[in-house]
Amino acid sequence: IIIFDEECFQGRRHEFTAECCNVMDFSFETVRSMRVESGAWVGYEHAAYQGHQFILERGDYPQCNAWAGSNAYPIGRLTSFRPISCVNHRECRMSIYEKENFLGRRGEVTDDYPSLQAMGWCNNEVGSFRVHSGAFVCFQYPGYRGYQYIVECDRHCGEYKHFREFGYHSQTPQIQSIRRVQQ
Amino acid sequence: IIIFDEECFQGRRHEFTAECCNVMDFSFETVRSMRVESGAWVGYEHAAYQGHQFILERGDYPQCNAWAGSNAYPIGRLTSFRPISCVNHRECRMSIYEKENFLGRRGEVTDDYPSLQAMGWCNNEVGSFRVHSGAFVCFQYPGYRGYQYIVECDRHCGEYKHFREFGYHSQTPQIQSIRRVQQ
Repeated sequence: IIIFDEECFQGRRHEFTAECCNVMDFSFETVRSMRVESGAWVGYEHAAYQGHQFILERGDYPQCNAWAGSNAYPIGRLTSFRPISCVNHRECRMSIYEKENFLGRRGEVTDDYPSLQAMGWCNNEVGSFRVHSGAFVCFQYPGYRGYQYIVECDRHCGEYKHFREFGYHSQTPQIQSIRRVQQ
Repeated sequence: IIIFDEECFQGRRHEFTAECCNVMDFSFETVRSMRVESGAWVGYEHAAYQGHQFILERGDYPQCNAWAGSNAYPIGRLTSFRPISCVNHRECRMSIYEKENFLGRRGEVTDDYPSLQAMGWCNNEVGSFRVHSGAFVCFQYPGYRGYQYIVECDRHCGEYKHFREFGYHSQTPQIQSIRRVQQ
C-alpha cells in the first residue's frame, strides 16, 4: 500500500508492506490519496485502528471520497491501516443472527449479497455475527453503501455478539448488504 | 418502490410499480427517503432518466446518502427511476475491453469483482463494454464506490462503445469495480 499526502498520487509518498498504527509517525498529517498494490486492507479514521473502517482492495484511490464512499462520512480521514490476513475469498462462511448473542433467526452467508432482504433476510438489521472462515464487509445500506464493518474469523474469535462489537462507532445494528473480502 | 418527501420514511408517500419519469409530476419536490419492496431499479438525478445513476435494490434508504453513497455526489437528488427488467442474476455475462469500440485487451465478467485489478485487469480503466446477458453496475473506485454506471443487455443493444455512452455525466473511463445487479 502506498500513501500520498496530496490528492491524485502527488506530494510525499510512503510505501508499507505491513500495518501502520499512525501515519503521523511517518510525518503524514493525513492521507489524501492511496494505491493498494496487493492484498486487502482495513483503513481506520483514527490512530491505533479506531473509528470508522474502510475496506481497501487493490486499485487506485485518488481522493479520500474514493475510500470513504459515503456522505455519511463528512471526513474521509485515514490515520491507521492493517492488512487482512485470513482471507480465502472462495471459502468465506459466516452465520448471521436476528438478535444479539447469536439468538433469533439464523442465516448462512457464503456469497456477496447487495440486498440481504432480497436474499430472504427478515429485516434491515443483523443482531450478531459468527464468522467461521474468511472475512466479510457488512454495510448499513443496500448496495454496499453507508457505514462499513469488517468482520474476520481471526479477530474476536470470529464472534461479534452485539452491534457495539462491530466497530467503534456503530450506533445501530442496521445491516442491509454483506460481501466477502477479496484478496 | 415507495418514495417519501421526508427522511426516515416520513411525510408524504407514493408507491410505484413501474417507471417514473419525474417525481414532480406527483407533487414531490424531491425524494428524501425510499423503500424498495421488490425488484432492482435505477434512480436518476434528473427527470427523464438523466444525470447521475444509482442502483437501487431491495431495502430501506432512510436518507439520500443511502443511495448516493459517495462524497462524489454533493447532492443525492433523485428525480426519476425505472425498473431493470432484464436481470437474471445467475446468468449475467459481459465482455470488457481495454479501449473504446471493443478494441484492445478483453476480459469476461460473470461474477462480482470489488477490484478489477485484483482479478487481473490491466489498468484502472475500461474503454468499452458489451453486455451479453443481464445487467451490471460499474463503479469508478474499488469496492463499489464512486460514480455508478448501470449497463444492461437490453439497452443500447448491450453495447457501450465509449465512456460517454456509460452515462450522461461520465467524464472518464475510470472503472475499478463491477458487480451484477441482483433482483
